Amino acid sequence: MKLTSIGVIHSPHLQAAGTPVQPVFASGIEGTLELNPEYAGGLKDLEGFDRIWILYWFDRAAEARLEVTPYLDTRPHGIFATRSPSRPNPLGISSVRVRRIEGNRIHILDVDVLDGTPLLDIKPYVPAFDAFAPERIGWFATAKNPPVADDRFEAKR
Amino acid sequence: MKLTSIGVIHSPHLQAAGTPVQPVFASGIEGTLELNPEYAGGLKDLEGFDRIWILYWFDRAAEARLEVTPYLDTRPHGIFATRSPSRPNPLGISSVRVRRIEGNRIHILDVDVLDGTPLLDIKPYVPAFDAFAPERIGWFATAKNPPVADDRFEAKR
Repeated sequence: MKLTSIGVIHSPHLQAAGTPVQPVFASGIEGTLELNPEYAGGLKDLEGFDRIWILYWFDRAAEARLEVTPYLDTRPHGIFATRSPSRPNPLGISSVRVRRIEGNRIHILDVDVLDGTPLLDIKPYVPAFDAFAPERIGWFATAKNPPVADDRFEAKR
Repeated sequence: MKLTSIGVIHSPHLQAAGTPVQPVFASGIEGTLELNPEYAGGLKDLEGFDRIWILYWFDRAAEARLEVTPYLDTRPHGIFATRSPSRPNPLGISSVRVRRIEGNRIHILDVDVLDGTPLLDIKPYVPAFDAFAPERIGWFATAKNPPVADDRFEAKR
C-alpha cells in the first residue's frame, strides 16, 4: 500500500504552533490545492460542489503514539479517539470550502493544513453521506482548550 | 509515504456487486473492525462516541482512472468529483455507527466495505468538524441510480 502525492497544499500555516486544529476554526483562511498537472482531468465537474474533503499526509508529525493528550483537552485519550496527527498512518481529512477552480489549482477556504503538505485525494462533500448528528461525542463534549495547535506533535528537526 | 494495515474490516459484503455504495444505504448492516492487537491501546475512550470515521484501502479496486461513470449516475465525471474506488490513491472513508467495543474489536453498523478490507485509521466523528450543509452538491443533486455497486471498478482476477 504505497501512496503517491497527487499535489501539494499551499496555506499560510508555516508551523504547527498557532495553526487552527480544524477547518471550523480556520473560517475564511485561504489556501490552494495545486494538483500535479497529470491529475487535472480528474477535477471535471468538481466546480459544482461548494465543499470537498481533502485527504493528506501529516508529513511533519512526530512518530505515532497510542495515547495522546490532544490540543483540545488536558487529559490523555487513545489516538483513535482523537484527530491528532501522530497516528499509525498519518492521514488527515479536512472538509474545506471551494472558492474556484483554475486548471490544476483549487482555491479553497478554511484551510487548517500546513503549507507544503502532500495531497493524497479529493472527494466531493455530500451531506447525505457525510453529515450526521450523533448524540454522544465522547470527550469533545467537554473540550475547552484554544483551538490552535502547538508543537507537541511536530517531528523534531 | 507507506501505509501499514492497522487491522481488517469484516463485513457480509463478499464482492462489489450488490454492496451498498455508502453507509447511508447500508443502514443496520453489521460489521467488525478487528485491530491488530498492538493497536488496541489506541482505542481508549473511543466507546464514548456514537459514530466514527474509518479510513481504508480499496484493495480490490481496478486501477485509477481520471474519469469514471459512478454507480449513482449514468454520465462520466472526474474521479475527484466522485467517491468511486478507482482513485490515484485508493483511499476510502466511511462514517459508521459504533455498537460496542470489546478489546481489539469494534462492532459497527452501516458497513459499506468489502469483507477483508485493510483498515488504515479510525477517527471520532465530531459534528462540529464534519457535519455541514452545503447548498451545491454537483451531480449528486440529480443522482438516481440504485445505491448498490456492480463490478465496474473491481480489479479483474
